[in-house]
Amino acid sequence: MYRISIRTSRRCDIVDITPSIRTYLREIGAESGTVTVFCPHTTAGLTVNENADPDVRRDLNAFLNRAIPREGDYAHSEGNSDAHIKSTLTNSAQVLIVEGGEVMLGTWQGVFFMEYDGPRNREFWLQFTGERTAAPRREGEGR
Amino acid sequence: MYRISIRTSRRCDIVDITPSIRTYLREIGAESGTVTVFCPHTTAGLTVNENADPDVRRDLNAFLNRAIPREGDYAHSEGNSDAHIKSTLTNSAQVLIVEGGEVMLGTWQGVFFMEYDGPRNREFWLQFTGERTAAPRREGEGR
Amino acid sequence: MYRISIRTSRRCDIVDITPSIRTYLREIGAESGTVTVFCPHTTAGLTVNENADPDVRRDLNAFLNRAIPREGDYAHSEGNSDAHIKSTLTNSAQVLIVEGGEVMLGTWQGVFFMEYDGPRNREFWLQFTGERTAAPRREGEGR
Repeated sequence: MYRISIRTSRRCDIVDITPSIRTYLREIGAESGTVTVFCPHTTAGLTVNENADPDVRRDLNAFLNRAIPREGDYAHSEGNSDAHIKSTLTNSAQVLIVEGGEVMLGTWQGVFFMEYDGPRNREFWLQFTGERTAAPRREGEGR
Repeated sequence: MYRISIRTSRRCDIVDITPSIRTYLREIGAESGTVTVFCPHTTAGLTVNENADPDVRRDLNAFLNRAIPREGDYAHSEGNSDAHIKSTLTNSAQVLIVEGGEVMLGTWQGVFFMEYDGPRNREFWLQFTGERTAAPRREGEGR
Repeated sequence: MYRISIRTSRRCDIVDITPSIRTYLREIGAESGTVTVFCPHTTAGLTVNENADPDVRRDLNAFLNRAIPREGDYAHSEGNSDAHIKSTLTNSAQVLIVEGGEVMLGTWQGVFFMEYDGPRNREFWLQFTGERTAAPRREGEGR
């Protein structure tokens, strides 16, 4: 398992982590299988969505903030119940297909770390399951 | 990885894809493990829910349309921000358990492709991870 | 695949199933890979969230009940459309990383069975994919 550290920069932030997943698969010599991306935090999550127009991420955040307001009839004393609820609605794990050593995504898809209670130092974890090449490929050897 | 093509027939459509998953597992001779179903589109998703009363799917669609209206305070210029938000809330991937060559589902469960911006030609992808039988089974040999 | 039975105690209930996952991994001698937790019911779901302050679970349930009311403009005649909708929003499966025989979770994370139409007798299913130790460990041998 690989642990990748990131720093989020706002209370609600959406960070593209697709490049880290690509690097991980290359470094371990992944060939064919699935990669599990896991968020070990209860006030953050993961999603797969559009990586082209940043307005899509802005609209997603704005919707979540309208549907799950920060202030509300909450019992949890830390003042971040909204972040816990968002975490459950957007999931802690994403599973992606790997083929030919590459993570398989649609043309417009990226994988995003969803911060709901930042800015903070965060982690996400990566685990590949499947077949590996005999020797790990080095950066730049590509295919 | 298998790519399966489907045609959706409305803007918001729910298509049962369970039979395609069963056929895939039989064709590759899957025995025991998991199958990952992945939606490579950012305005569609996947879910597992009831396959008996079609009113459940109707109620699910009606709820999503009420909770995430098509027109709203969105920045994304393509006019389908609602579809992107629904995609995140219902997930791009579903992971299912495989045993004895069969996808394991509850009595009332089916796997559904959720179209949020159709009608369109769409795809979903299938990847099995686990043990396979020595020789793939042919259609009709069953168990 | 292991099937674990539980009894939920209210219409909307949140049950910590993390200990069962730990026991399963120990019993089968799991070493490194992923474990898929699957809910075979269409009016229940699974989530990963905080296992410390029970108010987080209370706030999550209260939010879901506000956002998806039990009574509403539903067509499904069984009177539990809200439970089906919640099931889709919180997902039927959770995939977790396993390393050194242990399920890898953040400090504050637990895995929860979400009951939306109880009290009932329910099941969840567990399937490990990955490498196992030569001999399964017995309870108490730990590491």
